[in-house]
Amino acid sequence: MTYCLAIQVNDGLVFASDSRTNAGVDYVSTYSKMHSFSVPGERFMTLLSSGNLATTQAVVNAVARDLVEAAPHNLSTFRYLFEVAQYVGALSQRMQEQHGAALRQAGISPEANFILGGQIRGQMPGLYLVYPQGNYIAASPEMPYLQIGETKYGKPILDRIVRPTTTLDDAARCALVSIDSTMRANISVGPPIELMIYARDRFEPTQRLNLGAGDALLTELQRRWSEGLRQAFEQLPRFAWER
Amino acid sequence: MTYCLAIQVNDGLVFASDSRTNAGVDYVSTYSKMHSFSVPGERFMTLLSSGNLATTQAVVNAVARDLVEAAPHNLSTFRYLFEVAQYVGALSQRMQEQHGAALRQAGISPEANFILGGQIRGQMPGLYLVYPQGNYIAASPEMPYLQIGETKYGKPILDRIVRPTTTLDDAARCALVSIDSTMRANISVGPPIELMIYARDRFEPTQRLNLGAGDALLTELQRRWSEGLRQAFEQLPRFAWER
Repeated sequence: MTYCLAIQVNDGLVFASDSRTNAGVDYVSTYSKMHSFSVPGERFMTLLSSGNLATTQAVVNAVARDLVEAAPHNLSTFRYLFEVAQYVGALSQRMQEQHGAALRQAGISPEANFILGGQIRGQMPGLYLVYPQGNYIAASPEMPYLQIGETKYGKPILDRIVRPTTTLDDAARCALVSIDSTMRANISVGPPIELMIYARDRFEPTQRLNLGAGDALLTELQRRWSEGLRQAFEQLPRFAWER
Repeated sequence: MTYCLAIQVNDGLVFASDSRTNAGVDYVSTYSKMHSFSVPGERFMTLLSSGNLATTQAVVNAVARDLVEAAPHNLSTFRYLFEVAQYVGALSQRMQEQHGAALRQAGISPEANFILGGQIRGQMPGLYLVYPQGNYIAASPEMPYLQIGETKYGKPILDRIVRPTTTLDDAARCALVSIDSTMRANISVGPPIELMIYARDRFEPTQRLNLGAGDALLTELQRRWSEGLRQAFEQLPRFAWER
């Protein structure tokens, strides 16, 4: 399993992902699920991926190859971010078709989900979720974050904290809490956690962190969050019979 | 959808459930998912149910009928709580078989999950999850709660708070927070929330609450929990570049 999320606020974008992949419980590995492409001063894009690892790697490889070889359609040619989402969706569909029949016979799903975020000069930053079927949806002020993989455990805190006016640093902290809650609940989501902050109109990553299991910041965040939740819990109202 | 949970602590048991059922998004109703049976001074049992409403109602009806008609096997005859779990599982299987073929042809699952909790005089209280296949597992000191239905949103808070030494009232508060988090994330889980506390060796419910959407306690709990989470969030450590 996997858990990736991205947040869109007025100031820019935040991307976060765990790094655990597994094929069954006895084949667990660490792979980065975050892939960035920038043309400094012109455009910045990041892809997060979940699902079949062969499919996601094939898509990322194809994206990189198209860019390097200056294919007719590549990350540097599209004028709108939604066209990039469409392109990623089409690549994903193609890769799934290639091995899908054989995989499905083996009881394995070829499906993959992607989150695409970025900015093209002259436009606002954008965030898209690309479904396995190749279609896509955008984030919005009412729904300022997108998630893929094991999404449910980490959703409540995002709903409570993230608004378009949230600062990038607070959004990044909230993403870490969201991933931490998920790691506690599902052993197939695990460190290191990759975190990237993109400040609007910068056209390159503003901050990039890779937080391993024993990382001091992550450990302190986990400790204070546990403590804060316990304090919040202790402040809850008593039942009538307790008074 | 549905969300039910039960917690086993040293002092007794806590049961909580939402009351929303739906068949598609355009047929939403309110049904109690909590059913209690007591023989005062002798035994106390509560069933929580999720899944196909016809199956769960058929099982609860059969349980009640067997008890009233003093069938050879009924809630008052079993010597161990795990035998009751087995009995509920067998009834569930029978009900599913009765209509399963027709339902599956219509693309509907006949499956149902149950949580059974209670105590038989002379034994410790117990808590079981009965799967749609009729088998069951028990709660334990390492896993002091069981959930059915939409379980993921409300799991992180249970993992953080509930221990065997938690008081019944704190366990009940935690159950309310867990259901509230789920209601926020999934519209098919909704009020009223039913809550029952069973203090060990009482052989009847100690407290029973039915909290509607506008209930004062629930509203205050939601308000303080939101505020407490926000405070906990504000106390999280800053990134190096923020200092």
